[in-house]
Amino acid sequence: PAKLKARRQRWNVKPSEMAKNTLNPIRAIVDGMKLTPNPDKPMIALSIGDPTVFGNMPTDDKVLQAMKDAIDSQKYNGYAPSVGYYKSREAVANFYSEPGAPLEANDVILTSGCSQAIELAINVLCNPGDNILVPCPGFSLYKTLAVSMGIKVKLYNLLPEKSWEVDLQHLESLIDDRTACMILTNPSNPCGSVYSKEHLQSLLSIASRYCIPILADEIYGDMVFPGCTFHSLAPLSSDVPILSCGGLAKRWLVPGWRMGWILIHDRNDVFGSEIREGLVKLSQRILGACTVVQGALESILNDTPQEFYQSTINFIKTNAEICFSELSTVPGLNPVMPSGAMYLMVGIEMEHFPEFQNDVEFTERLVTEQSVFCLPATAFEYPNFFRVVVTVPEKMMVEACERIREFCARHYRPRSQDSNELDQ
Amino acid sequence: PAKLKARRQRWNVKPSEMAKNTLNPIRAIVDGMKLTPNPDKPMIALSIGDPTVFGNMPTDDKVLQAMKDAIDSQKYNGYAPSVGYYKSREAVANFYSEPGAPLEANDVILTSGCSQAIELAINVLCNPGDNILVPCPGFSLYKTLAVSMGIKVKLYNLLPEKSWEVDLQHLESLIDDRTACMILTNPSNPCGSVYSKEHLQSLLSIASRYCIPILADEIYGDMVFPGCTFHSLAPLSSDVPILSCGGLAKRWLVPGWRMGWILIHDRNDVFGSEIREGLVKLSQRILGACTVVQGALESILNDTPQEFYQSTINFIKTNAEICFSELSTVPGLNPVMPSGAMYLMVGIEMEHFPEFQNDVEFTERLVTEQSVFCLPATAFEYPNFFRVVVTVPEKMMVEACERIREFCARHYRPRSQDSNELDQ
Ligand SMILES: Cc1ncc(COP(=O)(O)O)c(C=O)c1O
Ligand SMILES: Cc1ncc(COP(=O)(O)O)c(C=O)c1O
Repeated sequence: PAKLKARRQRWNVKPSEMAKNTLNPIRAIVDGMKLTPNPDKPMIALSIGDPTVFGNMPTDDKVLQAMKDAIDSQKYNGYAPSVGYYKSREAVANFYSEPGAPLEANDVILTSGCSQAIELAINVLCNPGDNILVPCPGFSLYKTLAVSMGIKVKLYNLLPEKSWEVDLQHLESLIDDRTACMILTNPSNPCGSVYSKEHLQSLLSIASRYCIPILADEIYGDMVFPGCTFHSLAPLSSDVPILSCGGLAKRWLVPGWRMGWILIHDRNDVFGSEIREGLVKLSQRILGACTVVQGALESILNDTPQEFYQSTINFIKTNAEICFSELSTVPGLNPVMPSGAMYLMVGIEMEHFPEFQNDVEFTERLVTEQSVFCLPATAFEYPNFFRVVVTVPEKMMVEACERIREFCARHYRPRSQDSNELDQ
Repeated sequence: PAKLKARRQRWNVKPSEMAKNTLNPIRAIVDGMKLTPNPDKPMIALSIGDPTVFGNMPTDDKVLQAMKDAIDSQKYNGYAPSVGYYKSREAVANFYSEPGAPLEANDVILTSGCSQAIELAINVLCNPGDNILVPCPGFSLYKTLAVSMGIKVKLYNLLPEKSWEVDLQHLESLIDDRTACMILTNPSNPCGSVYSKEHLQSLLSIASRYCIPILADEIYGDMVFPGCTFHSLAPLSSDVPILSCGGLAKRWLVPGWRMGWILIHDRNDVFGSEIREGLVKLSQRILGACTVVQGALESILNDTPQEFYQSTINFIKTNAEICFSELSTVPGLNPVMPSGAMYLMVGIEMEHFPEFQNDVEFTERLVTEQSVFCLPATAFEYPNFFRVVVTVPEKMMVEACERIREFCARHYRPRSQDSNELDQ
């Protein structure tokens, strides 16, 4: 009352630092591009990591039926516990249990998509000022989330010439006493790479040596091409604590349904009850996944026929092979054959395309001339590459590759001296 | 390499400060209570703010049908924009538009439950060190979220003797130059109060005078008893910027479906594009609501029959009247008649119950002896009250009131001298 108060005299409402610091590089780059397709050619978007957009990859009927049953039961209208129904958690635990890495319902936290799983995992492990190790190229959400929380990001290199294996020395050189967690994406977005058991063991041994917990982003788990094997990380180590993040989005082709999970692997009891309680507490902030999807989850996991998974992955593999073999013969491009997920990275020999400064300009002009949009890998902090999503209908894939070939033929300059000539 | 690095020698993984600071007072209090029901009496829980738990309040068939149609259409499996499908946002805008406060699709942000709406609204408006004004008694999530983000909470008093109107002087005295937002809950959880137009105008005039934006939690909007009117806040002011938070949870009786929204009211252009962009950015962190529910939203809003809303509110009103009139005649209790929502607060004249230190002990013993559980209002920072949820089946309501009467009769001490006697 007597105290003189600083009183605002006019409106001055600004977004918080966190809002300002929530930066989505894909949006930043794509919004900055001039994307005007060639009016004579229908647009082919190879940029969107959503396998459902072209309608050629519907989910399985069993999945839809499970949802309708859940609705009809009327048992799933109320609040679930913030970490999910016990029965649904149990279904996930049973589905992902392996002899070397058993899971119980209490080891599972259901979340609103794998994105929230990642958010909770980073949030529970890291304080502002800590740093996390993130793959480069890698899924951009890790950095978006971390930076917004004041957590530093250290990018470790993947090696295209070694099928995108981790540069182990580089990874190790980045570790310091504020390193709170290491993120591994396997299979990878954007690379489509799948790591061997040996490589995963090398990564685990670094984590073990430096005592760094791992966030294993396994949303593309089991989405590997025939002939290749997916090894989930947890069974390969009994001492490194692992939060494995996954969800229905990719394998079951329902990304919009926002059903994700964290599997807590902690056989060495490093996380103990504290990290588990931390995850529970954080889950109470906004509660988790839609109860209808939770109610359907047991049936979705147990009743989806094997043929569904197989036909999905066979389709992706065929497309990836088409794309790889087509682009392999295009002078100036270096596609890297994936082994899983739904992506393929293509290196651009920029010195042969002197008209373009970088991958952003290259892909921008590809839209202008050929109406084909590929995401420039600068969006994954990896310049001079672009990412192709290989879930589009096969005819589109073929057509897109043709147009990319035409585009490259037009702009390719055979000898690197060309750029010198230009300079003169 | 040559540089000597601080290398962790042993595992030491601790939950982050944010995880530790995410405190849910309801859990903290309930988990600390010894809740052992009387084995001779079946438990009646009047504590759970979930209208679906007793099965007596199903949602409308149209709502279920809308969901099944959305699933069958197969149009809602993919990613929606992070703020929701345009058509779904438009449906919400049309549903909530009023002549004094028109809304367009772009003014609507769809979220994973009203909880995420509140989280985004606080997050976009406040920086660590700022403070927000929060009703007392009030919904505990506001404080849980704010404290976890390093935002201070200043509790302003509601006055039970004035049907839980805000103590305006107290509210005003709390404002300082770091006050980033004022939260109003109308209708109220836990009070069930509904504010008059005049009272809302008084609140708006304070916000306007001090230039403080308002987060209007209107999740119980339109859930008012016949004879009473709900005034949404936005049409009553053209200068105060308002983020109105709502969702399907309560009025449509599907809290588990996690469908919420923010309505941006900013006719004075205070928020401008910056706050809107901030909300969009924050929404990209984990994406929003389940696409199936989004796909069903237009039909849910437009096709749910009026009779459904009416019968819900009539049922709640009847129960509230039973509870109020029963408990009004119990010596030592002072129920406050609500006008909406689904709650009723009951004051305890603690001096007449000298056996119990506080509302927590009182309600704990009520479980032990009578198997009736009411939430002690200490959970809402309002000691010496308890909250009754009035959505239980009518017979339970009656039975619960009988048992509360018996309990009070047993423990009531008529004259306050009694406590002196005990002291001697
Ligand atoms: C590697 C990776 N992790 C997580 C996600 C997010 O999954 P969700 O849609 O379930 O949030 C994606 C989505 O593209 C992804 O590529
Ligand atoms: C006042 C108030 N606001 C918000 C919420 C959260 O709603 P939702 O379940 O949609 O997150 C509740 C839930 O009880 C509430 O009482």
